[in-house]
Amino acid sequence: MTTPHDPLDLGALAAGVTLPDDQARARARVRLDLLAKPTGALGRLEELSVWLAGVQGRCPPQAVAHARVVVFAGDHGVAGSGVSAYPPEVTAQMVRTFVAGGAAVNVLARTLGASVRVLDLGVDADLADLPPAVTAHKVRRGSGDIADGPALTRAEAEQAFRAGVAVADEEVDSGADLLVPGDMGIGNTTVAAALVAVLSTAEVVDVIGRGTGIDDRAWMVKCAAVRDAARRGRAVRADPIALLAEVGGADVAAMSGFLLQAAARRTPVLLDGVVSGAAALVAHRIAYRAREWWLAGHRSTEPAHRVALERLQLEPVVDLGLRLGEGTGALMALPVLRAAGALLAEMATLDEAGVSNRA
Amino acid sequence: MTTPHDPLDLGALAAGVTLPDDQARARARVRLDLLAKPTGALGRLEELSVWLAGVQGRCPPQAVAHARVVVFAGDHGVAGSGVSAYPPEVTAQMVRTFVAGGAAVNVLARTLGASVRVLDLGVDADLADLPPAVTAHKVRRGSGDIADGPALTRAEAEQAFRAGVAVADEEVDSGADLLVPGDMGIGNTTVAAALVAVLSTAEVVDVIGRGTGIDDRAWMVKCAAVRDAARRGRAVRADPIALLAEVGGADVAAMSGFLLQAAARRTPVLLDGVVSGAAALVAHRIAYRAREWWLAGHRSTEPAHRVALERLQLEPVVDLGLRLGEGTGALMALPVLRAAGALLAEMATLDEAGVSNRA
Repeated sequence: MTTPHDPLDLGALAAGVTLPDDQARARARVRLDLLAKPTGALGRLEELSVWLAGVQGRCPPQAVAHARVVVFAGDHGVAGSGVSAYPPEVTAQMVRTFVAGGAAVNVLARTLGASVRVLDLGVDADLADLPPAVTAHKVRRGSGDIADGPALTRAEAEQAFRAGVAVADEEVDSGADLLVPGDMGIGNTTVAAALVAVLSTAEVVDVIGRGTGIDDRAWMVKCAAVRDAARRGRAVRADPIALLAEVGGADVAAMSGFLLQAAARRTPVLLDGVVSGAAALVAHRIAYRAREWWLAGHRSTEPAHRVALERLQLEPVVDLGLRLGEGTGALMALPVLRAAGALLAEMATLDEAGVSNRA
Repeated sequence: MTTPHDPLDLGALAAGVTLPDDQARARARVRLDLLAKPTGALGRLEELSVWLAGVQGRCPPQAVAHARVVVFAGDHGVAGSGVSAYPPEVTAQMVRTFVAGGAAVNVLARTLGASVRVLDLGVDADLADLPPAVTAHKVRRGSGDIADGPALTRAEAEQAFRAGVAVADEEVDSGADLLVPGDMGIGNTTVAAALVAVLSTAEVVDVIGRGTGIDDRAWMVKCAAVRDAARRGRAVRADPIALLAEVGGADVAAMSGFLLQAAARRTPVLLDGVVSGAAALVAHRIAYRAREWWLAGHRSTEPAHRVALERLQLEPVVDLGLRLGEGTGALMALPVLRAAGALLAEMATLDEAGVSNRA
């Protein structure tokens, strides 16, 4: 383990990312064709059951029992320029709503069988009255305005990234068998779009969406902010920590470390929307194998999300027109993944059921 | 209540189908915009929560507690012509697998919170050793080959349709608060394609799919069978019972009655794949309001299913490449619908959470 004073060794972190269990996947594929159903008739559910067997390293897979959402919260200076339909103070208000259990992600987690932790990385408010599980990893109050200059110092970006690694460790060590990165932060889709613009070949205007529901004027402001940020970001795109410092933020940097370490800990991840898509692109630059541990839970309406998923070659499980973040879209894929695993584990084979095979 | 000797009065059945509760829907729309989230950010989940409020006639809606799958099983003479990759005896074998709990629909129902009943309408086997809940509504052993002549006599079609009505009543009276029509029958996608061809403007070749996974030769046989059946079906398309007798089957006729009566009983339905899509088209001909009570659970890979959903103007909730039937695809939408209802019922409002509204 590193301490906060060690330099961050991304090469060592990347080397820790291994591949899922190919033998478990192969056994899953064989078993699927023995089950009491026409070959291939369960479509995507068959693919998902193979994936689950691979990341768990067992066939049939176990039921996902401890799915855990970690919501990475932070403010972004760029929100002050009017890139969002909502005022920046909403970030802190929503953090309190997550703690109180009244947000959409809380409701979905209760309904679909998961638990939620919210983490303040860079909220521009004093939340010291909240439990240490929320506040222990705070890097700063608000990340800088990426339209004007760096979001973070390099030391802050390292600290945030390392916090994400530590939180992945904490959660896996506490028994989480599936992780969901959620996001909360007014302005964070602007930051995510900038990262996606830098890490893809897409034109800036093609990655800018309506976020929380902005009008045309705000959309143009958002485009200009992303254009300026992406120009500076491209200059440092070979250095993921420098990139996160330049056009990211404490929350997104932490999420990148979290996604990388989840992969290193051989723990499956359901990605959410555009913010986790951007963080995943950064983590993928560090360790290309990491994506094997990630499933795209859903496709959001943000155009940068589509670009990120194409770049990651991940096909979303559901498409419900969501654009909320918080981990909500990823959670909608959880029952699908559980169903896929249960089919592989519990269906009778043609032989057991005494059912004739194809002619 | 009618007895089996009364003539079937479709006009009276249709008149029994009312519309969902518009006031509950309106209250749901108002409440959605008060919740602690950007306006519209929950996408399709918002629409589904409004639908659930409407069909339940209450806002917020209650949790769906007694979802019930009814699998309509029957054989089809056309299976003898080689339109399926699997031999006809699989139908009866699968009925026993449903009773034993080892089929895909049983696993999904257990995992996703539903119960399963299988109903023998026209299986070409003696299943008299199975419980009366399975066998009480049997019409005949195997429906006729639609490529050559009628599937059923008119009396049999009426009997089957009436059985479906009775089963919907039985299930609603037993407490079901959501119904899912499932299907099992080698050859049933051929019959469904014929019904869809008759009840849509699609060309025959555009509604013929690969069913359980047939090769090109079997696909051509299936096309010829559907072409011949559809030609006879078009002559009687104004008379739904005659149509079900000519190119349907006991299972599909019963499912049509079931879907109609579910609507009459103000009970929401999650439609499954191409067979329930075809049965829904027939029920929709009888009572156009019935579709207000139905949600398209998924889109299967069968082309006739896409055509049926377009005709019904229903947008599927998920698209997972399934082509199994049994009710499996519909069940994948159940957690989505439950999640939608829970969000409307349990999320904090902006006011309650002390969250600022849009600027």
